[in-house]
Amino acid sequence: METSIPTLSGRTSGGRVIYLDHSASTPVDARVLEAMMPFFAEHYGNPSGIHAQARASAQALDQSRREVAEILGCKPKEVVFTSCGTESDNLAIRGVAFAAAQAGKGQHIITSACEHHAVTHTIAQLCEHFGFQQTVVPVDRWGMVDPADVKRAIRPDTVLISIIYANNEVGTIQPLAAIGEIARERGIPLHTDAVQAGGYLDLNVDHLNVDLLSLSGHKFYAPKGVGLLFVREGIALLPQQTGGGHEGGRRAGTENVPYIVGLAKALKMAQDMRSTENERLVRLRDHLIQSVRATLPDAQLTGHPTQRLPHHASFVIPGVEANVLLMHLDLMGICAASGSACNTGAAEPSDVLLAMGIPPQLALGALRLTLGRSTTSEDIETVLEVLPAVVRRLSALQPM
Amino acid sequence: METSIPTLSGRTSGGRVIYLDHSASTPVDARVLEAMMPFFAEHYGNPSGIHAQARASAQALDQSRREVAEILGCKPKEVVFTSCGTESDNLAIRGVAFAAAQAGKGQHIITSACEHHAVTHTIAQLCEHFGFQQTVVPVDRWGMVDPADVKRAIRPDTVLISIIYANNEVGTIQPLAAIGEIARERGIPLHTDAVQAGGYLDLNVDHLNVDLLSLSGHKFYAPKGVGLLFVREGIALLPQQTGGGHEGGRRAGTENVPYIVGLAKALKMAQDMRSTENERLVRLRDHLIQSVRATLPDAQLTGHPTQRLPHHASFVIPGVEANVLLMHLDLMGICAASGSACNTGAAEPSDVLLAMGIPPQLALGALRLTLGRSTTSEDIETVLEVLPAVVRRLSALQPM
Repeated sequence: METSIPTLSGRTSGGRVIYLDHSASTPVDARVLEAMMPFFAEHYGNPSGIHAQARASAQALDQSRREVAEILGCKPKEVVFTSCGTESDNLAIRGVAFAAAQAGKGQHIITSACEHHAVTHTIAQLCEHFGFQQTVVPVDRWGMVDPADVKRAIRPDTVLISIIYANNEVGTIQPLAAIGEIARERGIPLHTDAVQAGGYLDLNVDHLNVDLLSLSGHKFYAPKGVGLLFVREGIALLPQQTGGGHEGGRRAGTENVPYIVGLAKALKMAQDMRSTENERLVRLRDHLIQSVRATLPDAQLTGHPTQRLPHHASFVIPGVEANVLLMHLDLMGICAASGSACNTGAAEPSDVLLAMGIPPQLALGALRLTLGRSTTSEDIETVLEVLPAVVRRLSALQPM
Repeated sequence: METSIPTLSGRTSGGRVIYLDHSASTPVDARVLEAMMPFFAEHYGNPSGIHAQARASAQALDQSRREVAEILGCKPKEVVFTSCGTESDNLAIRGVAFAAAQAGKGQHIITSACEHHAVTHTIAQLCEHFGFQQTVVPVDRWGMVDPADVKRAIRPDTVLISIIYANNEVGTIQPLAAIGEIARERGIPLHTDAVQAGGYLDLNVDHLNVDLLSLSGHKFYAPKGVGLLFVREGIALLPQQTGGGHEGGRRAGTENVPYIVGLAKALKMAQDMRSTENERLVRLRDHLIQSVRATLPDAQLTGHPTQRLPHHASFVIPGVEANVLLMHLDLMGICAASGSACNTGAAEPSDVLLAMGIPPQLALGALRLTLGRSTTSEDIETVLEVLPAVVRRLSALQPM
């Protein structure tokens, strides 16, 4: 085993960039790209047309929908392809909220303190501009929601519950099935942002007891710019993108055939390799977590110690400012993150970390290392040499 | 010159599929695909991150935004990348309408009788579900809007005017600059759906006097699944997709870097070859139109005879039903359309054709032939042999 020797003045001497930001985005898998390629310049017809070119596209679209539906354990027509996880979350929340409000069912939404901005900012806009109200159920110190809190938050005018499947910043996996049972008893649709779970966890919508589920392709080796929303049959949705009758009238716009083909291929691949790959990732991740805690005893694991995504290690480190740490890791050839990529660069502590009871000053020292298919044990060893050295140097330079 | 000999029983004997549905979608140009390729598996970082991988993506995004802005004659920050033309239209209309309504400016929208469904269905939803009102200004027999009608339609509570640049079904180009002058005098934002114009007409937003302009990549040899909305600085927009602060807070969601790079490349290429390619297309198209009218004297050109898209020929043909005609042309290896791809298969006559005064029965016989970069004069000759034979056969078989 050849380990790169880190220097503090530049990239790891091996020259290899170590990418530990798979929760932000993944490279497109070569086999996924291969599946997509014929749909750029060879089968390029608009699937809505009536001719040979259109049919080739329409057939690929149908086939992809069936493949995805099989993995989700749903009907093909319950799958709505979108342009990203954010769009899926927006369509689920705004779509259900507006439809329910206009049916006179109410304007109250329940969510958790541990959601992605695609959920929180969408509910916030509904509250600020469209007369909705929300109840944000708390999370415990591990970022976990208590289903009993969801139950208590339900009001007669509650029209939607939206709880993340696995958190992007701290990796904690929520007890969705239990929450779903409560939601179903009361006849309230349950949406889950499963963007971070896609590729790693069980996505069967009946196992999860969910009525709406968002996924994003680029979290599981499909490209950025494609996602999907599962919408259980019978759930009323006011479309948020209107025009042609695409996606069963729920999402207008010419379908992104190459990416949809890629998403289906990538989801199938992830599903097929899930159990072996998860095992490998957990082994690497646990070694990373244990070693970081051994060498940096002040560093604190964030998120649940066991109920967490298999590839996800997250910490808060006293005495360092996350963005400065990331820049130094980058200089050493290590790509890491502080939390949500959508929130990077912000000087504010993360709402999610604050909700978990982490003090604001400490929350500014968040570090997220998310492993992926290319991650080797050599990569982890390099990080374990570089990270403590960088942290100690920064702590000395800039005492907070 | 080798011309394929058509037979009524199958594909043209040359075996070549003649694709005349470029208004529905275009193949991705090889140079566009080449520009996109590095951003799938090599530079795959999320542009929001703080590391080398993220920077490569962010730089490509910035560069693409600058290239596009130069063509539109606007500032880079006035460009919002979206997932398609439909999303752009939706964001423009819903975004401006909600922002204006909430600022107490009113709830009245002006549009024309010659718009794409992405516009008409979005305004319809605002009227049906959110208390807005619309005035639909008429079009003349060529599908042309009279700016004086727009002026007359303006009310004190008018908050948006949305007029298509060039119609998808009949190719007519609207007098946008004159309409824009009227809008500007009254301080009302003018949006244009320029999806069909992209790649063929001048897109300079100051020449056009527009405040919002929608484009879709796959109409000019970029892929399906990417578009943009120009939003003039100072135009208030309530975002329709909320989450991270992407696109200046106007459109959340991880950016589709490969496609955005492709869109910029494709727009630049289309701009560079526009004058020579348009000349070539006009020559082919005019020959097609004149010959169809000579061989099928009952066929009527739809849309303006001269103020029309250079690649666009559209007709109504008495005695044939469009979908049947398309299926027969397809059997002969010719890919054509009846009108909007988003409306194909519908048994209803097109609203646009009805608004132009075409009788419903006649409107059901719509045929759209849209040429493109691969179209040769041999293709046109083949169509000119096949089409009259097919029409005569169908007219004899199914007198309407």
